[in-house]
Amino acid sequence: MSEPFVEESLAVLARTPASFDGLLRGLPDVWISATEGDGTWSPYSVIGHLIHCERTDWVPRMRIILEEGVERTFDPVNREARGERLALGTMLDEFAELRRENLARVRELNLGTAELEMQGMHPTLGVVTLRQLLATWTAHDLTHLIQVGRVLAKRYKEEIGPFGAFLSVMK
Amino acid sequence: MSEPFVEESLAVLARTPASFDGLLRGLPDVWISATEGDGTWSPYSVIGHLIHCERTDWVPRMRIILEEGVERTFDPVNREARGERLALGTMLDEFAELRRENLARVRELNLGTAELEMQGMHPTLGVVTLRQLLATWTAHDLTHLIQVGRVLAKRYKEEIGPFGAFLSVMK
Repeated sequence: MSEPFVEESLAVLARTPASFDGLLRGLPDVWISATEGDGTWSPYSVIGHLIHCERTDWVPRMRIILEEGVERTFDPVNREARGERLALGTMLDEFAELRRENLARVRELNLGTAELEMQGMHPTLGVVTLRQLLATWTAHDLTHLIQVGRVLAKRYKEEIGPFGAFLSVMK
Repeated sequence: MSEPFVEESLAVLARTPASFDGLLRGLPDVWISATEGDGTWSPYSVIGHLIHCERTDWVPRMRIILEEGVERTFDPVNREARGERLALGTMLDEFAELRRENLARVRELNLGTAELEMQGMHPTLGVVTLRQLLATWTAHDLTHLIQVGRVLAKRYKEEIGPFGAFLSVMK
């Protein structure tokens, strides 16, 4: 059992892949490829982005903090990268598998209070703690779940007619 | 096979219960009972609200439109009602079961282009079509998924520190 804050974060991080999967797997392409306009992300591209982050962002950065501290600035993450163009079901499987592996790695790190306060050097934000990085990993999943919900909902902005008065997301 | 618009809406409505379930089932109570402040909803209360709507709102109103048209104003829905206070897992099961039953009822209605244009009388919004009601049922699920994601993410508003610059949901 790690520090309570770690357990609490892992509880969310362990569940978000199933939430994306439940919503998106098998959904018709009109939904999966919907965007909020030119240059904005579809649910499909969000999953590609999440896969990219599992590979390059969260756990690699935790290791840099634990092994090298602020001396070694994090490698920049390409926040626009969305990985390969595979079938969505394959990508959802990949995201879930990468997440399982990454959460197992975090558990092996046995993060306690001291580790959570250790610092790293973000290329644009400056000094950040491992605790902030873990919190951001958790919140980042949720912001993309929100984004997917918003992209899907907005397809019906006109369709809902007068009910738009009740649904603030459409504004 | 119903009208394409119906199929497209049902594709989302069939999946949102699994998305809420994947995210919330077994999640520690600090998350489930989190709110955005006094008088705002927790993830727990959102599921109670969705159950209430399955029982009183969408399909009952479709039937009124099909059977009585604009002559019979919809019964008002208590948008604050959140049902009984049961364990979250029980409520997630109940929501999923009610949804399955309601989607089966919609399929039995064999909604075509003519039915979708039929009108009902909303107690505050006035004339609405069955198509608008179906679109709103779909978008309503998504707005509450967004809300749950937002409530959870905001618990970490302070925890993410400098990363707040990247996560607009926290503002």
